[in-house]
Amino acid sequence: MEGGPLRILVVGASGTIGKAVVAELAPRHEVLRAGRTSGDVQLDLTDEASIRAALQQVGPLDALVATMGKVTFAPLQDMTAADYDVGLRDKLMGQVNLVLVGREHLTDGGSFTLTTGVLDRDPIVMGSSASMVNGAVNAFVMAAAIELPRGLRINAVSPGVIEEAMADYGPYFRGFQPVPAARAALAYAKSVEGAQSGQVYRVE
Amino acid sequence: MEGGPLRILVVGASGTIGKAVVAELAPRHEVLRAGRTSGDVQLDLTDEASIRAALQQVGPLDALVATMGKVTFAPLQDMTAADYDVGLRDKLMGQVNLVLVGREHLTDGGSFTLTTGVLDRDPIVMGSSASMVNGAVNAFVMAAAIELPRGLRINAVSPGVIEEAMADYGPYFRGFQPVPAARAALAYAKSVEGAQSGQVYRVE
Repeated sequence: MEGGPLRILVVGASGTIGKAVVAELAPRHEVLRAGRTSGDVQLDLTDEASIRAALQQVGPLDALVATMGKVTFAPLQDMTAADYDVGLRDKLMGQVNLVLVGREHLTDGGSFTLTTGVLDRDPIVMGSSASMVNGAVNAFVMAAAIELPRGLRINAVSPGVIEEAMADYGPYFRGFQPVPAARAALAYAKSVEGAQSGQVYRVE
Repeated sequence: MEGGPLRILVVGASGTIGKAVVAELAPRHEVLRAGRTSGDVQLDLTDEASIRAALQQVGPLDALVATMGKVTFAPLQDMTAADYDVGLRDKLMGQVNLVLVGREHLTDGGSFTLTTGVLDRDPIVMGSSASMVNGAVNAFVMAAAIELPRGLRINAVSPGVIEEAMADYGPYFRGFQPVPAARAALAYAKSVEGAQSGQVYRVE
């Protein structure tokens, strides 16, 4: 039943979730780290050419994992179209760009795992852009799954607020059950090492 | 229990759903029609200044209904970031712009009703942009609902493929139960004339 080691690129590997995903997968697989300014390879998900260059540098992969994405948190009253655009460019289209470019670099049966979050279903004040973007990524994953060629798979992980980030985010997430990053990382392993596709793994 | 007539602007009033919404609401309310090139007032949802001008022209409203929005239908394999951008600019941010500008023009307790569709939950080939945009609008509605001031409400209607559009869309929606536009229009009435907020009304 056990497969051989996979070759996995984790984009956002220096982040709280990224580090936990690397820690979960590295004992069993060849894990490469990518980030905007750190890691084994640098790339900017908002720039397709940068993704293309990075993926050509690392060579064939069995899995691409994205654990990064920027959105604007602000009161709805203050949000402008430009504020929503930040999240649409970065967390939404950044991750979608990784799929559009990365599909040529994945081996048959390889997988994409994208990141959304609990605001897709449980809104908070100042979170309307995060909710919008998470809902978009979840639905994109569901739809892309039925069209990917060569047995390629795609899932999203939608964790609750991460325990290690509660010092920063706690005041905005009162009453939310924090999720340890290591527990969220299990869902990334399920996506990468399992066989499901088109799923949103909610970790709460 | 019965309230007085409401003043309602239907954006996209000349479309298949828009016409049915007008037919449902007009017997009980003052319904104004808006469209890109037709109706009582013209506006382009992708242009905030155009929305602002149109709303100033029509004066105070009790309800704003959007039943329009463009997305690109194409195989995932052919979709580019620019193709996804069409739907993000038009069906997603067009409707969000209507909320951002329109909130100042709604009377206390007034409502927004946006339009998504069945691809938010039931994907088809060539529909990844529509799924993405519908998921984004649904989640935005859920999140915006908890922050709107003055008792303003917001809901989305997510109808199945519209029966009157099956001549055009049928081949892409095999096996989907078509929904008569008049039945979808009931959900818009529920949103406008009811008291719920943050809901996605799925009409199947």
